[in-house]
Amino acid sequence: MNIVFSPIGIIHTPFMEPEGTPIQTVFSKETRGAVEVFDQYRQALTDLDGFSHIILLYYFHQSRGPKLTCRPFLDNQERGLFATRAPARPNAIGLSIVELIKVENCLLTIGCPDMIDGTPLLDIKPYIGDFDVKANIRTGWYATAQNRVQTAADRRFSGS
Amino acid sequence: MNIVFSPIGIIHTPFMEPEGTPIQTVFSKETRGAVEVFDQYRQALTDLDGFSHIILLYYFHQSRGPKLTCRPFLDNQERGLFATRAPARPNAIGLSIVELIKVENCLLTIGCPDMIDGTPLLDIKPYIGDFDVKANIRTGWYATAQNRVQTAADRRFSGS
Repeated sequence: MNIVFSPIGIIHTPFMEPEGTPIQTVFSKETRGAVEVFDQYRQALTDLDGFSHIILLYYFHQSRGPKLTCRPFLDNQERGLFATRAPARPNAIGLSIVELIKVENCLLTIGCPDMIDGTPLLDIKPYIGDFDVKANIRTGWYATAQNRVQTAADRRFSGS
Repeated sequence: MNIVFSPIGIIHTPFMEPEGTPIQTVFSKETRGAVEVFDQYRQALTDLDGFSHIILLYYFHQSRGPKLTCRPFLDNQERGLFATRAPARPNAIGLSIVELIKVENCLLTIGCPDMIDGTPLLDIKPYIGDFDVKANIRTGWYATAQNRVQTAADRRFSGS
C-alpha cells in the first residue's frame, strides 16, 4: 500500500546543512524561521494566528535511511529507531513544535526552528494542551542521557 | 514532488467507524488499543518500553478531503483547516499521543486510542517533555470552545 503525499509549503531556516542544525527546538530559542505555505492553501491558514504554538510535520528530505537502530547524539549506544527522533525512519516524517510568532498571508514567522533550510512541509496542526501536554511521563534512555543535552549541534544526519 | 510512504503497521481500536470514535485521546482514558508493527521493523522497537507515552503518526484512511476549512465539532463556525485537527487535510496525516502500556514483540498495548480500527500506522516517536511539552500556550478558537469539550463522540469524519 503506497500513500502519496505532496508538500504544502517549504520551511526556511538559517540551517543550511545537517551539521550545525540544532537538535529539536529547545536549542534554538533565539532563532527565527519562516514557513512558506503554498498559495493554494491560504484559506486553510485562517484562525491559525490565535495559537501560540503549532506542530509542523515535514519530510526529512536529506534522510539517509531507513535504519532500524541508531545512536542518538545524546547517547553512547545504539537504540531502536522508534525510540529516537532520528531522521532515518521508514517513513521519514519529522515533527517539531514551534512557536508561531506571526502570520502574514501565506508566510508564518516561527521561533525555534530545528530543521534544514528548504525542508518540504507536509502538515500544520494547532498545538493544544488538552491533547498534546502529558504529565507524569517516563522517557527511558533519554532521561539518563538528558544531562548531556547541552550541545546545540549534532551529527544526527551523518553516519550512525 | 511526490513523497511515497508505506504503512509500518496497523492500529487496532474498539472504534469501527468514524461515528462514535472519540475526539483525541483525552476522551478515551479507560479504552485500550493495540499497535501491530510489521515484523520487519521489530528491531526498531528496541528501547521503546522505557517511554510512558508515544507519538503515533498515521494515515487518515477514511478522510474525505481535502478541505480548506471545516467546522470543528467543538465550534459553531468554519475554521481554517490548519487551525484544526480534522482529518480532511491536504496530506491526511493524523497525530495522537497515547500512553504506552506494554511492548510485547511487535505488539504495543496503548491507552486512550482515538483512531478508527484498522488505521495504517506511519511512524512511532518517543514523547519527550523537553521537546513536546510547551508552557504558556494560547489556543485561539479552541480556548473559547473548550467548555464544550465534554462529549465523547464526534462527527469529525462526516459532512463538514
